[in-house]
Amino acid sequence: MKALFLNCSLKASSDESNTSALLDKVRYWLQQEHVETEEIRIADYHIEPGISRDMGGGDEWPQIREKVFAAEILIIGSPVWLGEKSSLSTLVKERLYASSGETNHKGQAIYYNKVAGAIITGNEDGAKDASKSLLYSLHNIGYTIPPNADAYWVGEAGPGPSYMEAGKENEFTQKNTKMMAYNLIHFARMLKELPIPTKGNAE
Amino acid sequence: MKALFLNCSLKASSDESNTSALLDKVRYWLQQEHVETEEIRIADYHIEPGISRDMGGGDEWPQIREKVFAAEILIIGSPVWLGEKSSLSTLVKERLYASSGETNHKGQAIYYNKVAGAIITGNEDGAKDASKSLLYSLHNIGYTIPPNADAYWVGEAGPGPSYMEAGKENEFTQKNTKMMAYNLIHFARMLKELPIPTKGNAE
Amino acid sequence: MKALFLNCSLKASSDESNTSALLDKVRYWLQQEHVETEEIRIADYHIEPGISRDMGGGDEWPQIREKVFAAEILIIGSPVWLGEKSSLSTLVKERLYASSGETNHKGQAIYYNKVAGAIITGNEDGAKDASKSLLYSLHNIGYTIPPNADAYWVGEAGPGPSYMEAGKENEFTQKNTKMMAYNLIHFARMLKELPIPTKGNAE
Amino acid sequence: MKALFLNCSLKASSDESNTSALLDKVRYWLQQEHVETEEIRIADYHIEPGISRDMGGGDEWPQIREKVFAAEILIIGSPVWLGEKSSLSTLVKERLYASSGETNHKGQAIYYNKVAGAIITGNEDGAKDASKSLLYSLHNIGYTIPPNADAYWVGEAGPGPSYMEAGKENEFTQKNTKMMAYNLIHFARMLKELPIPTKGNAE
Repeated sequence: MKALFLNCSLKASSDESNTSALLDKVRYWLQQEHVETEEIRIADYHIEPGISRDMGGGDEWPQIREKVFAAEILIIGSPVWLGEKSSLSTLVKERLYASSGETNHKGQAIYYNKVAGAIITGNEDGAKDASKSLLYSLHNIGYTIPPNADAYWVGEAGPGPSYMEAGKENEFTQKNTKMMAYNLIHFARMLKELPIPTKGNAE
Repeated sequence: MKALFLNCSLKASSDESNTSALLDKVRYWLQQEHVETEEIRIADYHIEPGISRDMGGGDEWPQIREKVFAAEILIIGSPVWLGEKSSLSTLVKERLYASSGETNHKGQAIYYNKVAGAIITGNEDGAKDASKSLLYSLHNIGYTIPPNADAYWVGEAGPGPSYMEAGKENEFTQKNTKMMAYNLIHFARMLKELPIPTKGNAE
Repeated sequence: MKALFLNCSLKASSDESNTSALLDKVRYWLQQEHVETEEIRIADYHIEPGISRDMGGGDEWPQIREKVFAAEILIIGSPVWLGEKSSLSTLVKERLYASSGETNHKGQAIYYNKVAGAIITGNEDGAKDASKSLLYSLHNIGYTIPPNADAYWVGEAGPGPSYMEAGKENEFTQKNTKMMAYNLIHFARMLKELPIPTKGNAE
Repeated sequence: MKALFLNCSLKASSDESNTSALLDKVRYWLQQEHVETEEIRIADYHIEPGISRDMGGGDEWPQIREKVFAAEILIIGSPVWLGEKSSLSTLVKERLYASSGETNHKGQAIYYNKVAGAIITGNEDGAKDASKSLLYSLHNIGYTIPPNADAYWVGEAGPGPSYMEAGKENEFTQKNTKMMAYNLIHFARMLKELPIPTKGNAE
């Protein structure tokens, strides 16, 4: 079983990412259950905006798209800016949406029988706004959203330390990363054993 | 199997409700699969705002709460006002949240192994905003959100006819009510056969 | 000059309100500039849901509506529940919207030449989501939104102390209540001196 | 007086843009009042994600930033994708935010005494969600938001014609573009005559 982390930090992997640090907490639990994980730092890639599978001009989305299709579990990680998800996570959402018309061999949307979650880090406020937007979009294109499929850290109102500086021991966040990881695994396994019947949802 | 519709129209059942008319489309598909359905018009009840199971003072939420617990499928219906879900749907969300600390006999949140969806009607704009908010909240307290768990109708920008006047034959909306109904049934059945394991999510 | 605070806490005034405590900080600055202030605890009133000026059946909105019309400055205060504004603030928004078709003697929407702001308190996350929703709605019905017209306090992710327990000395929040109060006053005075011309916005 | 339109369509100016067509309606009214207008198609530029004034590596934001500072009126135009504003509008928001710490000669945020609005086009739903997000962010960094500072067009629920194909004669949208244009002009003029006093908002 494979889990793909799309880290939509605005920073390339040459810089440390708080979102990456929180994704690591989820990775720990996934690995306990022998789920293979891979993290992609979106800022490392040249991804064109647009609503096509391949926008051309050196667009590197197609190689990420292949990994999305190969993974049973997708987790989008985003920092918070001005109380909302990052521009790169919005870009990823749009490119995922571009494939929402593709179907599996049963005629269901290509994202059916896959599960998704969200990881959010911010200095102070906006985690649920960001997660709400990402999970709703993922549900809309075909992902299953298990209960408690997100985890986040934000600090007190105002400028202040980041997750890596201050939040790594936060009990609430720790508990949620574990709950999220296990629920994603549970549902990915359930959908392997009992794939979603096609009645009502296949063309 | 039982499905409960909480219709959060601002109007009591003495008035026609567009949201009710769209819920009827979902009901049709649920009944094809022998799911028992019940619609509650929230505006008919005296429900106190607050974050307790029973707010006292003639609060009628407790009787609705019992029905929520008895149903495998919960669908919240809301009209759109100023581009967002109704105050009554926000009230219902808060009262559902008040029981999020209650657990089943396995120690999981009381809403685990249940599935949820949303039905939205509006004159012109705001359906996805309303649905996004409701589905995220329901996921947060323990509901499973299947893919394509919502359906809505809105008309063209500006004042204009309502769902009952203009939208009942909209193909996109019809297709979504069917997809939503079947996915709710598929997942409710799946969770009966394979309940969510407790690892990671039980106290 | 009058400022009206509509405190949309779920609790009646027999209970302490964190939102009220943060409104007091704004009140302090308004009083320095001789602005008359009044706080209404929405939970103390019987307000019917609906989109009419007076819903009948003992509806107490009409008396609040008069106070809204008499005040140059309106501040809506809301707690955060599940990352969003309260049901009572949504109710207030709907009832304010019900008068959006009324006009002043120049034919402009009744809320023109008035300014609005928002005060939000929560345990951990959702302040900007709540404020964003309230300020957008107020702008939509005719209020002017000065820069930095909101202030909020939320604590670190997870359950924890409230504004009154932990946030009253937060520098960021203090600075924002002052900035908000002064910008509301500046714009209320500006609109007295230079009312919005009617070109383009009057019937 | 200058108005800058930042068109955040995902398409470069080699393609027609519905958002551009709706911006033209606003332009018409601005020109009646001798406001100079310029539209920038964000997709034509190489803009790096990040929270700095100049991200280096050929980043073309700095030249847009100069135009933002030179204009009294800023209008962000965005299409709707999956019920929300575009990734490019989120990118623009982040880059504008990167200058929110800069101040004018009085010590106020650099965006003070400027006014902002939003133009949204979509096939079916999400205009107010997109506008709400953009206007809130612009208010947060220092822009004044006049009443009715947005206009949009969306069609009926589901796939269907675009603004250029079906919406150009929509009366509601037409009325809103006029109201928006005039209110932006009125407030830009008011702020020229009576700039925002510094009390409470300057460092």
